[in-house]
Amino acid sequence: MADIKLDKTSTRAPEKFDKEKTKAALPAIYEELDELQNVLYAQGKYAVLIVLQGMDASGKDGLIKNVFSSVNPQGIIVQSYKVPTAEELSHDFLWRIHKHAPAKGMIQVFNRSHYEDIIVTRVHNMIDDNTASKRMKAINDFEELLVHHNNTIILKFYLHVSQEEQHKRLDERIHDKTKQWKYNENDFIEAALRKEYLKAYEDCFKHCNKVKWTIVPSDQNWYKEYLVATTLRDALKELNMQYPGIKK
Amino acid sequence: MADIKLDKTSTRAPEKFDKEKTKAALPAIYEELDELQNVLYAQGKYAVLIVLQGMDASGKDGLIKNVFSSVNPQGIIVQSYKVPTAEELSHDFLWRIHKHAPAKGMIQVFNRSHYEDIIVTRVHNMIDDNTASKRMKAINDFEELLVHHNNTIILKFYLHVSQEEQHKRLDERIHDKTKQWKYNENDFIEAALRKEYLKAYEDCFKHCNKVKWTIVPSDQNWYKEYLVATTLRDALKELNMQYPGIKK
Repeated sequence: MADIKLDKTSTRAPEKFDKEKTKAALPAIYEELDELQNVLYAQGKYAVLIVLQGMDASGKDGLIKNVFSSVNPQGIIVQSYKVPTAEELSHDFLWRIHKHAPAKGMIQVFNRSHYEDIIVTRVHNMIDDNTASKRMKAINDFEELLVHHNNTIILKFYLHVSQEEQHKRLDERIHDKTKQWKYNENDFIEAALRKEYLKAYEDCFKHCNKVKWTIVPSDQNWYKEYLVATTLRDALKELNMQYPGIKK
Repeated sequence: MADIKLDKTSTRAPEKFDKEKTKAALPAIYEELDELQNVLYAQGKYAVLIVLQGMDASGKDGLIKNVFSSVNPQGIIVQSYKVPTAEELSHDFLWRIHKHAPAKGMIQVFNRSHYEDIIVTRVHNMIDDNTASKRMKAINDFEELLVHHNNTIILKFYLHVSQEEQHKRLDERIHDKTKQWKYNENDFIEAALRKEYLKAYEDCFKHCNKVKWTIVPSDQNWYKEYLVATTLRDALKELNMQYPGIKK
């Protein structure tokens, strides 16, 4: 795919999408997802890995709540990756990731992921370009392992928000009592590094593209949820899964 | 509490419960659960452990799907315990359980649990009464650890089905194409040991009662779901949780 220029990529829904109509379509899509997950689990043939990346306040948590509540909690696991612990840092950067690769039949969601190790680390000059390049190769090899050796469907989403929308949401965390627990003054410092973050992401999309990225315009939550839900639904439908018969 | 006699305990909803009215009440209860889970997660003060036990086809899976889909998947983890692996058997019986004890802020669901180690093992004479008694003490101590040292709310549910309903559901697994993957001929052999299972459970309720058991009449799914959902809701409400302010 052609190089992605994030500052030339819209953070809003394409014009043809109407908010009310799109929202009205969601319940039926969630029902489809629920049914598809049921067969995925019963059949136990494919694994699904959903990678969510995006800047602070791009809406990863809300997406998880609204899209993935639609499926049976027994068949889905959400793993959030934070700053690595001392134990994690004493291993290669994929060690803590591999542990949570999805088993066949399961949907695994990564709220942040191994991509932090070539994004935040580059923005803060914790690794040089040579190390970044080696890590990107390791990531490609790792994703290939999951795809070819465990029938894993990997869907990678980058939640793309505008600077204005991001600031608006970070401000809400100061004023809205139900959101204050999410407030971290450091988020504003990171947000100021927007240019550096977008550059690191663009480089990542260019070099870690054996598994496709979906850039999700995320200023409007309804469209973000619609795009992720339909992308997942379509990927699951393509598998033509069947309920297995009685196991011998 | 007085000794429980399972064959004298109803497997059906109390008369005052009307099916349609009860079902109509569920969506509002699920909304309450969703909100309570949100504060639980934000506050990060309490942990919740839900233990589900019951014979095959007592409806544990359906309960998880229908009740726990209502909460944010980021805040809930379901762990199913199967026959222990070789690695698990090379440790004490609580080793594989302790790993999955809930972190503060989280709801952990055990689909089967450490109670299998004093139920199925006794029914099949894999342990003697003396070992069972020592294990029951260890379970009480372990639950006390979680309660007193990590603010854990433990809710233990026994899903109680009649022999007729159990047979009906096991038969469905032969004939219903969407359920055949659950069929296991062994389930009929276990079901025939009903008397022995009920006896082992009664002994367990008697000796592992520092944390209360709720016996859930489970022949009707709507009542089973209502009772578990409201028990959880009431336990969460009692905590008087608050959204924390901005963390300093």
